[in-house]
Amino acid sequence: MIRVGIVGGTGYTGAELLRLLARHPLVSLTTITSRAEAGLAVADIFSHLRGRVDIAFTEPDIGRLGDCDLVFFATPNGTAMKMAPELLKRGVKLIDLAADFRLKDPREWERWYQEPHASPELLAEAVYGLPEVHREAIRGARLVANPGCYPTAVTLGFLPLLEQDLIEPDWLIADAKSGVSGAGRKASIGMLMAEVGESFKAYGVTGHRHQPEILQNLTQATGHALSLTFVPHLLPMIRGIEATLYARLRKSDCDLQSIYQARYSGEPYVDVMPAGACPDTRSVRGSNTCRIAVTEPLGQGVAVVQSVIDNLVKGAAGQAVQNMNLMFGFEETMALGDLALLP
Amino acid sequence: MIRVGIVGGTGYTGAELLRLLARHPLVSLTTITSRAEAGLAVADIFSHLRGRVDIAFTEPDIGRLGDCDLVFFATPNGTAMKMAPELLKRGVKLIDLAADFRLKDPREWERWYQEPHASPELLAEAVYGLPEVHREAIRGARLVANPGCYPTAVTLGFLPLLEQDLIEPDWLIADAKSGVSGAGRKASIGMLMAEVGESFKAYGVTGHRHQPEILQNLTQATGHALSLTFVPHLLPMIRGIEATLYARLRKSDCDLQSIYQARYSGEPYVDVMPAGACPDTRSVRGSNTCRIAVTEPLGQGVAVVQSVIDNLVKGAAGQAVQNMNLMFGFEETMALGDLALLP
Amino acid sequence: MIRVGIVGGTGYTGAELLRLLARHPLVSLTTITSRAEAGLAVADIFSHLRGRVDIAFTEPDIGRLGDCDLVFFATPNGTAMKMAPELLKRGVKLIDLAADFRLKDPREWERWYQEPHASPELLAEAVYGLPEVHREAIRGARLVANPGCYPTAVTLGFLPLLEQDLIEPDWLIADAKSGVSGAGRKASIGMLMAEVGESFKAYGVTGHRHQPEILQNLTQATGHALSLTFVPHLLPMIRGIEATLYARLRKSDCDLQSIYQARYSGEPYVDVMPAGACPDTRSVRGSNTCRIAVTEPLGQGVAVVQSVIDNLVKGAAGQAVQNMNLMFGFEETMALGDLALLP
Amino acid sequence: MIRVGIVGGTGYTGAELLRLLARHPLVSLTTITSRAEAGLAVADIFSHLRGRVDIAFTEPDIGRLGDCDLVFFATPNGTAMKMAPELLKRGVKLIDLAADFRLKDPREWERWYQEPHASPELLAEAVYGLPEVHREAIRGARLVANPGCYPTAVTLGFLPLLEQDLIEPDWLIADAKSGVSGAGRKASIGMLMAEVGESFKAYGVTGHRHQPEILQNLTQATGHALSLTFVPHLLPMIRGIEATLYARLRKSDCDLQSIYQARYSGEPYVDVMPAGACPDTRSVRGSNTCRIAVTEPLGQGVAVVQSVIDNLVKGAAGQAVQNMNLMFGFEETMALGDLALLP
Repeated sequence: MIRVGIVGGTGYTGAELLRLLARHPLVSLTTITSRAEAGLAVADIFSHLRGRVDIAFTEPDIGRLGDCDLVFFATPNGTAMKMAPELLKRGVKLIDLAADFRLKDPREWERWYQEPHASPELLAEAVYGLPEVHREAIRGARLVANPGCYPTAVTLGFLPLLEQDLIEPDWLIADAKSGVSGAGRKASIGMLMAEVGESFKAYGVTGHRHQPEILQNLTQATGHALSLTFVPHLLPMIRGIEATLYARLRKSDCDLQSIYQARYSGEPYVDVMPAGACPDTRSVRGSNTCRIAVTEPLGQGVAVVQSVIDNLVKGAAGQAVQNMNLMFGFEETMALGDLALLP
Repeated sequence: MIRVGIVGGTGYTGAELLRLLARHPLVSLTTITSRAEAGLAVADIFSHLRGRVDIAFTEPDIGRLGDCDLVFFATPNGTAMKMAPELLKRGVKLIDLAADFRLKDPREWERWYQEPHASPELLAEAVYGLPEVHREAIRGARLVANPGCYPTAVTLGFLPLLEQDLIEPDWLIADAKSGVSGAGRKASIGMLMAEVGESFKAYGVTGHRHQPEILQNLTQATGHALSLTFVPHLLPMIRGIEATLYARLRKSDCDLQSIYQARYSGEPYVDVMPAGACPDTRSVRGSNTCRIAVTEPLGQGVAVVQSVIDNLVKGAAGQAVQNMNLMFGFEETMALGDLALLP
Repeated sequence: MIRVGIVGGTGYTGAELLRLLARHPLVSLTTITSRAEAGLAVADIFSHLRGRVDIAFTEPDIGRLGDCDLVFFATPNGTAMKMAPELLKRGVKLIDLAADFRLKDPREWERWYQEPHASPELLAEAVYGLPEVHREAIRGARLVANPGCYPTAVTLGFLPLLEQDLIEPDWLIADAKSGVSGAGRKASIGMLMAEVGESFKAYGVTGHRHQPEILQNLTQATGHALSLTFVPHLLPMIRGIEATLYARLRKSDCDLQSIYQARYSGEPYVDVMPAGACPDTRSVRGSNTCRIAVTEPLGQGVAVVQSVIDNLVKGAAGQAVQNMNLMFGFEETMALGDLALLP
Repeated sequence: MIRVGIVGGTGYTGAELLRLLARHPLVSLTTITSRAEAGLAVADIFSHLRGRVDIAFTEPDIGRLGDCDLVFFATPNGTAMKMAPELLKRGVKLIDLAADFRLKDPREWERWYQEPHASPELLAEAVYGLPEVHREAIRGARLVANPGCYPTAVTLGFLPLLEQDLIEPDWLIADAKSGVSGAGRKASIGMLMAEVGESFKAYGVTGHRHQPEILQNLTQATGHALSLTFVPHLLPMIRGIEATLYARLRKSDCDLQSIYQARYSGEPYVDVMPAGACPDTRSVRGSNTCRIAVTEPLGQGVAVVQSVIDNLVKGAAGQAVQNMNLMFGFEETMALGDLALLP
């Protein structure tokens, strides 16, 4: 049984962590912080947790957090990097669900997040928490950078093509679509239902923060430079990401299906669908699975990959719990057994 | 005042035609047919037309249709091509909102629609009803093939790039997304709200009937062979298509914005947004406008075009009325002045 | 041609006024104000108005507003009552789409809106802008209080029963449901799509501001005291109100259908459906119609009335334009001819 | 470990049973039948079950079903009543999720379901599977009639008022709203997303099959005759029922809150919210909880109860598993521990 704290528990990622941790048999949630809601019971904000989560929000307190074995940061970007050094010094392991430790180059961080990095000395140590790539490093990590939602879907989708060097590196396309929960739980006109319901659009078309994170992942996989065009879109629904990926094949007779199946054959949370299938986001709603299909339409030399995840589970809280399980030697799938809620 | 008939008026395209024609000052709707609903008042199926459309469905009758000046086919694919010769012989002009006369090559039609073409001799005469390309030909046409919804959005999006020969022809990508009304009004499990609500997926990834239609349009625009990958997706909403288009620029210093604005400067139904903008489908909901934005993200040599339409208006009934206005010498914008219904 | 101004044009009601007025042949929109967005073009916020509305927001200025023939207030509650006296003095006619002049008793206003009324002397003069009840008074009015959305749907639904004294007055039930656009266009967590999508709940169950307004309307209709229980609910959709009304019939052999048809036979914007029908909100989406059905289920002595409107049209901007038409002697239906956008 | 079969597993109720049973530690699913899909793997229809449910649909076979300890009927109305006698004879316990054994009076069944009852001799024995009322009888039952979704929400909402004889019996109002999954998974135009999305309406206003079932429940609770008006509505969302109930209080000083809390204090799946709260359907999405609030708005003598459930869980499959747990002496909450999926 480990003692766990959550910093910043009033958002959707925090709520999803609560849902998953509430039934983890080896976790005791000892503290959850929120400056804005300190004193309020968690179940007063999230009525679905009534009777199951009886803890209240408190002010962040380094002493209480320092008593934890593990602290999750479900905070806005820029928070974890300021508190991490002190907590690590006290022997606490950390999983940051924000972006603070995802990019290896602090100048890149500053470029995309408009703020100097507060703990650049930790970037080399931080392990990027994508178990399908870094499982062994995660097991030994003190500090895990939990991947972004788009980067999880896009990286898992492109990975087999790049590791096998099957595609031309000079232009990869990732056309990604996300449900609105990806924008977080904060007051804004732009995410009102009357603004985003029954409508669809791209956003961040001139450059999105997840682009350098994805590019870093893909470059690591292939070992040489790549060019990636990444366009995110906003779906009129709550949960789910679908990424349709396009890349030019180097040669025409690859058995893409077998390559994908082989790459992910032992993975508990990647499901490669049969050739020609089209995974839908609802098939992973509430589950930690990434479901993938690959095809080469009309034999034209272009690989098309579809990758779906639940942005709050495999794209955030579920992957964080998967990482926790690895870091503490628990069974990797513990508390992550949910089947998707369909319909 | 012209006499107009509609064959197959119980679908969404038919209903939208009714909505638009109901206030057209120079149109008298004299007959609307439906085998399944013959005898039923239109307003008994579509209660929003109560008090405004007082006609009833009848069995299709060549005599009554032959008395019209114009007949719209809002039927499944394969119907118009069987009735067209007889109606043309009687001097009726025709606009087919299905696919029967869109492809110039009857073998292509047979390949994608699994049926020999019944009137191949009419294919050469049929004018493809995209006013932004074929306006003059439409004015003189007896038989107009109204474009598909995806082909309208994708063609208008790619056109300036191809006409100016700015992109490499060997692989164009069209990642398109449509609301569910595009699937029509027919009983099916797959389009139940409990199946497609709150979810998103690609479909037809191995080949979709609109691919050859789009390819035909784009090839005509550029005059040489192209390779196009087209992947349609299903949005959890009712109306609207967004297409995000990707193409590799031949050179890096194009003023894409000016090129698009110049191409569409005189067009009443194409609106080029400012650089960096992201058109949303709701901004064209119920209107005949196609709204477009173009950019080159991060200066990487890839043009990204976003194109949005209402699939039932500019993608079907609205464009059909625009074509009718041209064919009969009416003002092109007559009865098409609706602002989008937003929110 | 009249000169018209709008105070507070950045909300959904303001946008809907713009949509309707843009094609009104006898209206010239001369000014639209917004403190927050002064200087910004209207079409920069509402891209669906690009190319059709070319005016910009300005600071509210009593001089410019005083030059108008008519000013609409599409502001939060409590604004119009402060500006009205000065504008009336300058000979401007006013239509307030907020609640400031709806309640006749200033103490009631203060009780429900938590602020003393700033212009109680105008309450007697203000005409409640429900044309189906006060048409003649509206024609002569300087100051019209445009009804609330729920009160419009509920009042029109109950009216025939009360005017004919057919129901017991001691408890009327109005179970009303509204789309999210009714909550307005302002930043809030509670109206994020991730909060209100795919969910349904009542709200304001212990007392809602529209309750006294409805009660005032119903009491006027019947002339004696009534008891009304009004429970509003929030629908996971954008536009539309449905109110299901319950009342105990005094006697069992009323021909409810004929009574409703007779009451509304001359009304351009009330459509009584056939017995047993169930009007859906989409049948009035974007239109100014109120669609009503009445029945006595299982002959149990309880009348059930269903009443649907578009909360932004008949429930706000459309009714305001209808009132404007009456006040200026225009045809009552001018610029209000839209058929609903369905699907 | 018990052997369990499901008859009719291709609908939403069947899928939800599969989701819940897949992780039940004491259940072995041995057979699932579907005439239409015999031979197809369950996971080929429901991709969210890939890798977790590896059984295929088979033709219904009395021999294989007869080997089960328990058979669930997730079939259309009228199927279970024909197969039940033979299976009971073979010692199989039955839970029918359809309506066949819910009404005690076979003439009522015939009136509402338009078919004579095939096994009227079993109606007296069948236990109505609402654990909050019939827990002990369920433990000993061979044949359980699983309650309807609306009757579950409405009955639990009214129960404390009736058991304590607090309300006037002559007119109770139940205004109920359901997500579209309640209509089942079968091809129909009426339930297409383009028909029911972004819209709301009542249906069955002249009489719905759940009315006699609710009335039977409420009459049993109070011991005397009642009059109930029940109006169901269709919500533009997938899962969830909300029922707002209205009843006239006999006296004005009841402590409704305490009465509700006392009634349900020991119940694992009924959560009474604080006074003034408004439960939302999402707070029970995917969970077996019924969440209830009660109030007397404005002290007017009318009790207003709000009751929410997930129609597929507490309204169908979850309640069925709860009943199974009781019938076989398992812990009542086994496999039913899900927190709601929110957002």
